[in-house]
Formats: sequence, C-alpha cells, structure tokens
Amino acid sequence: MIGRLNHVAIAVPDLDAAVAQYRDALGATVGAPQDEPDHGVTVVFIDLPNTKIELLYPLGENSPILGFLEKNPAGGIHHVCYEVEDILAARDRLQTQGARVLGNGEPKIGAHGKPVLFLHPKDFNGCLVELEEV
Amino acid sequence: MIGRLNHVAIAVPDLDAAVAQYRDALGATVGAPQDEPDHGVTVVFIDLPNTKIELLYPLGENSPILGFLEKNPAGGIHHVCYEVEDILAARDRLQTQGARVLGNGEPKIGAHGKPVLFLHPKDFNGCLVELEEV
Repeated sequence: MIGRLNHVAIAVPDLDAAVAQYRDALGATVGAPQDEPDHGVTVVFIDLPNTKIELLYPLGENSPILGFLEKNPAGGIHHVCYEVEDILAARDRLQTQGARVLGNGEPKIGAHGKPVLFLHPKDFNGCLVELEEV
Repeated sequence: MIGRLNHVAIAVPDLDAAVAQYRDALGATVGAPQDEPDHGVTVVFIDLPNTKIELLYPLGENSPILGFLEKNPAGGIHHVCYEVEDILAARDRLQTQGARVLGNGEPKIGAHGKPVLFLHPKDFNGCLVELEEV
C-alpha cells in the first residue's frame, strides 16, 4: 500500500542555522522558506536525489511544532511521510486494523497541495506517520 | 556533498509486531531479520520504491538501542542515513565546520558492509545523522 518515502520532517529551533548547515556543511540543495499558515509552520525543503528533507519551524502562536520543540529544545525528527495512491482507502484499511487517525479523520491539504492525514504515533512505534495522496 | 537518503531507522520495542504492521497494515515489502552483533542490533529492512526503512531492535546487553528505548518506550525515529561518495572527505569537511563525529572518528563497517560514521545529534538539530560511503 505505501509507496515512496515522500519526506522526512525535522523540527528545528533555528531555521536560518539549519538552512546554512544543510547548504554549507552538508552541501545539499536547499529551497526557500515557505510559510504555511494553515499548518502553523514555515517549511524549507531540502532536495536529495531520491526524496526530501522538510525542515519545520513554528509559525504563529498555535503552531503544532511548539510543543515538540519544548520537549526537544535542540530539535528532532518530527515525522515521516509515505505516499499512497488513495488516501481514503488507506485510511479505511488502517482504521480496520486498529490504527488511529489524528484530528477528525478527514484529509487536509498539505504543504504540497495534496491530501494528507497523520496517524497516531503510539500506533506506529512512537513514529508520527503522515500519508500523502499522490 | 550528501547524496541519497539511504534509510530512516526506527527503533521498535517489539520487532515482530512492527514487522507485521509494516507488512500487513501498511502493505510494504519487509525483509528477514538480520542480527548485527557488531552493532548490537537486529535489523529488518523495509524496501520502499525510493529508499529503505530500517527497523532496529536491541541485540545483547550492551545494545546502543537500549537507552533510546528506555527514554522512548513506544519506540521512535532513531536516525537518518545520508550517502556520501568519500566518507573521510565528508568527515574532514564536517569537522572543519565544527561538527562532532561520534566514537573515535574512524568509520566502522555498517549493516550494509559499507563504511559508516555517526554525527553528534546536538550538532544536527537533535537528529542523529549517519553517513554511509557508497
């Protein structure tokens, strides 16, 4: 069911420093910051040859990243995103197997303009999983 | 400098349950468990079309995963692994920029039989980074 790893998201406490590090020290191709007010984050995509790293930085007072950075002040890996062909079919299959979908269970439009869902990390080895329909 | 994302490693408290979940609920292609006594882990690779997920389970009393699972009993994303062409050149470049290499600074042979190094998570946004020469 799951397809490609669309991205790995890393929450960072200092976006400029993280951008400089991936660009200069790690020599990666780093995009421009994009504000995503609907998701409460500013994102920077790092293009690797086979997938992307998504740097996440809080945007606004209700950013979902703020709590994560309080618990992990240095930052940390926040989630992985797997691609699926049909997000509603994927959701229904996972719910049948007992996995919980965060929020109201309906897909939202993610940072790439595609429908996304998040699965409860307690049901996936402590790992927050995003599904994105492609 | 960094190339492909070689894998994302997820430490799991119950390897059989995690294997069944990725195989049956997420419908992924899951390999057989491999004991890596030199690294203190049993690993299972999940093949995605563009990269791999590496499930990590402790092997032996001195497993480096035991401490992580004590802090994260449900499991969690443990590290990301980026490919590099020349691991010694990558190490020297990163050290020049102030990044710390774990251990004695010399590459070890990793689970794929290739030279690997780990970088200090405090220097990389709280994210443990493995470099693998390919």
